[in-house]
This record gives sequence, structure tokens and C-alpha cells, in this order.
Amino acid sequence: MTAIDTSRLPVAVDAMGGDKAPAEIVAGAIRARDELGVPVVLVGRPEELGDTHGLEVIPASEVIAMDADPGKSVRTMKDSSLVRAAEAVRDGKACAMVSAGNTGATMASALLRMKRVPGAARPAIATPIPCPGADIPTVLLDAGANAECSAEWLVQFAQMGAVYARHRYGIAAPKVGLLSIGEEPTKGNSLVKETHALLAEGSWIGSTGAEFVGNVEGRDIMSPDLDVVVTDGFTGNVVLKTLEGGMRALVRAILASFGTNAETKAAGDVLLPALLPLYGQLDPDNTGGAMLLGLNGVCIISHGSSSATAVVNAVKVATEMVDADLVGAVARTIRPEPAE
Amino acid sequence: MTAIDTSRLPVAVDAMGGDKAPAEIVAGAIRARDELGVPVVLVGRPEELGDTHGLEVIPASEVIAMDADPGKSVRTMKDSSLVRAAEAVRDGKACAMVSAGNTGATMASALLRMKRVPGAARPAIATPIPCPGADIPTVLLDAGANAECSAEWLVQFAQMGAVYARHRYGIAAPKVGLLSIGEEPTKGNSLVKETHALLAEGSWIGSTGAEFVGNVEGRDIMSPDLDVVVTDGFTGNVVLKTLEGGMRALVRAILASFGTNAETKAAGDVLLPALLPLYGQLDPDNTGGAMLLGLNGVCIISHGSSSATAVVNAVKVATEMVDADLVGAVARTIRPEPAE
Repeated sequence: MTAIDTSRLPVAVDAMGGDKAPAEIVAGAIRARDELGVPVVLVGRPEELGDTHGLEVIPASEVIAMDADPGKSVRTMKDSSLVRAAEAVRDGKACAMVSAGNTGATMASALLRMKRVPGAARPAIATPIPCPGADIPTVLLDAGANAECSAEWLVQFAQMGAVYARHRYGIAAPKVGLLSIGEEPTKGNSLVKETHALLAEGSWIGSTGAEFVGNVEGRDIMSPDLDVVVTDGFTGNVVLKTLEGGMRALVRAILASFGTNAETKAAGDVLLPALLPLYGQLDPDNTGGAMLLGLNGVCIISHGSSSATAVVNAVKVATEMVDADLVGAVARTIRPEPAE
Repeated sequence: MTAIDTSRLPVAVDAMGGDKAPAEIVAGAIRARDELGVPVVLVGRPEELGDTHGLEVIPASEVIAMDADPGKSVRTMKDSSLVRAAEAVRDGKACAMVSAGNTGATMASALLRMKRVPGAARPAIATPIPCPGADIPTVLLDAGANAECSAEWLVQFAQMGAVYARHRYGIAAPKVGLLSIGEEPTKGNSLVKETHALLAEGSWIGSTGAEFVGNVEGRDIMSPDLDVVVTDGFTGNVVLKTLEGGMRALVRAILASFGTNAETKAAGDVLLPALLPLYGQLDPDNTGGAMLLGLNGVCIISHGSSSATAVVNAVKVATEMVDADLVGAVARTIRPEPAE
């Protein structure tokens, strides 16, 4: 067990959010404290959390269901674990929040309680897309926060995505692509064409160090040559779920082929250990979750079926992003300080 | 060699279109005639086609490059193989056209020469998406013809997709889903919400026998439970290329895992034959190509790197769709005959 750095503010973990809440979430929060040595506070119904191994609990009597209407539930359920977790960040009682609950409600809670950084038009969900066989994923944003976007918002997403790629993955000059249906600037819908012109003009780059590589296509997302892919939240969410479904269907079919006969079964047993690193890389529990960018606080959205391991990884990323002052960096990029 | 049914009109194959044109295309056209027993005519520069094994050639002196501007090239290159192939269908010299060339130019040639069936607002590209391990693919449309769509067009795409699923795959009651970012009717962008209301209302179904299953998500596309997925051409093309890229990246990483050491190499050699059926199912050469729906003629778009096998499969699908009078069925569905 690592010593706990009590000089830090805790990370607030929504104990009630996720398909496996509260048991797996609580287990993950305890492990996060013990393995990472950072303080963690749970938010939820104390009587439902079992033995928290000494973790403090911010009580919240309500639970926003995974399929509840986000806007309505956040407005009416003021004592929900999600709203209380976001308030803990706003009030300086926690340095960041993590939830595996209702994505829309997580976003709404964080937006309403933490607010945006000055100048940020809209928050965006930045999701790491693993590139099979490569170390560093591609950051896709917006992965679902805004079903409809303007070109100006997409330019801000490019800025925020570049800052995130630098702080999260240490990429000094992130390669940023605009998702379209052809590489030429004339390809795409009107939103993409307008955005391409703004991104190509280049004044958005500022201190991000980013390089705009132009339009990219769906097949480039998993390429290790690309660091950030910018798109609207409708297309981004469709892409994310298409990849999830496609990968799962393919892996299932491959495993089924392994079972063809006794000989292939034996060969499959030999190969499975060699496939484990790839499997681990594609496991969403290991990505550290998606990050809401543009808010005045760190909010990590972990996937709905998060295990304890997913919670540990999300707390780890949250801590790193707090230490790196990602929020400050986003704010300075979007609204640069006037030159002296 | 199968006897050739000379009572049929030939399928016109654009000999100049595709990364491997003309050699692979000509080889595929010869094989299609010999293996399927249907007449085939090549369209292109006779002097560049080599030995055509007796296939007739419709001469065309110009070639539209793979990366040429579609609208401009079709307007200015009237003696191009693509334009001449579409004219052969229009003029009753061929029953269908097949091209592995510039997709946009194929669509523009077919649209300008064959025209739309009465009432069809826009042609759509219908692409079969293989469902790993299942026999019948999911038809995705529009896979890229229209970067911007109206809700009314998407309703026609649902009709045309259902007719296609029935004629191509024999599905009597095709399950049609609308691609969105959540299953609830309130989820999605404004185009999807408007389209959902029109599709749910149901008067479009007519004689298609289709069932509207509501919004579907990216992860459902490769599900064998779904027959047709409707979306705008921007989202559809992004989805198509995302799946292509994702599958390729995953397969490459899996094969790399096989090479970890001598033991896994040996196991991989045992497993590769068991994986071949899956590999074959995902190989775009085997899908028979994408089909342009809504035109007054059969036009198959084969993928750019088509091999001879891809051409054979495209000619086969073209022939089947002519025999099934797909064009007539689409026309009757979109604009039903008035009741007596």
C-alpha cells in the first residue's frame, strides 16, 4: 500500500453511477487510494456502500438512473450523487470528479455546477481511441456532448484536444485532423468545409504547438500517425460506438474460429496469452475514461460497465490532469492573456 | 466454362476504373463471362486492354482519374469510359454498369445519363456491411452519395434499402434502423429527430414489408438482428471507413501477436485456415460491391482496389439485380401506382 498524500484534495467518485455500482465502484475507489496514494471521497448513499475501508462519504440521497433524461434529472435531483460530486469540485472539497453513471447527466451536472472556463463555447467529450499495437491512442472529440455543432466550436475542440494530447500523452506537437469523407478541403458537409477553412487559416494554433494535418477519414482514426481527431458530437459518438461494436463482433468471430476443432482449440490456448496485451489495450477499463474538456474543473466519464480497475485508472488520470493544471492550460489556450 | 446466355443484354464493365485497371478489371470481366455465363462488354481504350478473350469493347478515349473532381470531369470528359458505360445502359446496349473507378464520378455519370426513377429525390449508395460470423450483411445507406440530406430523403433511403434487402438477400420483412446516438426518439441531431418522427409514422412502409425498429447505434450495425441502417451520406461514409480502418488495424495487430515466438508462430499456422472463412467474409472483394439506388438503371460501384474476383462478384450482383427488376421495384415503392 502506498502512503497517502494527505496534502492533496481528494478525487470525488460517484459511488452510485455505473452498471456495477456501488460494489465495483467502491472497490475501485479503495484500490485507487491504496495503489495510487491519493485521497478519494465517495459520493452516494452511505447505507448502500458497505465497508468503505475508511473512505469518507459525501452523502447524497438520490441516484440518477443510467437511462434518465439528463437535463431533467439534474435539475430536479439536487441531492443526487452526480450533482453532489460536481458541487464538491466547485466548492473546493474535491480536486476532480469521476463517474461511470449516465453520461449526459454527468455532463449536465459538471456543466451546471463547475461552469465552463471563460471563453469556452461548449464542453466536449474527449475519448482516447486505442491504436492496436501502438502505445498512444488517438484523442477523438467531441465523442457525444454536442449533437449539433458550429464551426467555431469545432475550432475550440481542436484547441482543447491539442492541449489534452500534450498534457495527457506528452505530445509536444499534436497532429490534429478534421474528420471528413475525403482528404480534399472541398470534401464533406457544409460544417466540415467551413471548419476546414478556419483550421487551415491557423490562428487557433497559438501555444498548443498543434499541426493541422487537414481532413482525415474514418480509416485514419486508429492510425498511430494522428493524435487528435475533431468532429461534431453526433458523428463522434457514432464512430465510437461503431468501433466498439465492430471490434467486439470481430473478436467474437475470431474466438469462435479458434473453437473449430481440437487442433485449433489447442492452438488457440497457445495464442491467447500472446493476444492478452492487445486485449488489454482495447479493454475500455484501461483507457482511463473520457474527459470533459472546457469546464472549470476535472471531470472523468468512465464507461457504463466500469469495473474497479476502470475506477482506479480514471482516478489516476484525474489526478494527473489536476497536477498538470489541464484546466488552466485549456483556459489560457482558449482565451490567451493579452500581451503586455 | 458455362455457356453464355446470348439472349441477355451484356453488363458494361468500366475497364479503366480502379487502382488495378485495366489488367485486373479485364481479367475479372473475362472470368465473369466464363464463370457466370453472362455477356459482358468492356468500356475503355481498346489499345490498352490487351487480349480481351473475345469480349467486345465499347471504345472510350478518356479516363477519369481516381482523384479527379467528379462533377467537372463528367461534364467535360464526355468520351470517358465512365460516361460511355452509363450511356450504354441508358441506350439499351447494356443491362447494367460496373465500375471500380472514382466513386463520385461513377455516381455523377450514372445520375446524369441514366437519370433517377420518377419520384426519387436523390440516389443513395447502399453498401453491405459484413456481420462477422453471420451469413447476411447489414445494408448501410447512404454510404456517401449525399453529404447533406433532408429527412424526406432519409425516408426514401429507408424504402429503397428495404426493397434492396428483400431483392438482394431475400429478407421478406427487413428490419430498418435509423442511425443515432441513443435509442430514444429524442436522441440525435435535428435531422435524425425529424426523420425518426417520419419513419415512426409508418406510411412509408407500403409494400416494402419493412419494420422500423427505431434508432440504432453504431454498435448495432454489425449485428445480425438488423437488416438496413439508414443515415446521411456523411455519417454513413465515416462509419464505412471507420470500420474498414478499425478491422484492418485489429487484424494486423492480431497477426503480429501470432509472430511473438516460435510456439505462437506454429499455433498461428494451425489457426490461419480456420480464420480463412472470416477473412473471406470481411474481404471487400467478396461483397459484390455497393449499389446505387434510385437510378433508372443498375450501377454497381466496386471498391477502388478491386481484384478480378471483385469484378466477377459485382457482375454477378448486377445480373441478379437486373433479373429481379430491382429498379422497377424501387420505382413502384417510391411512387406507388394509384389504386384502381
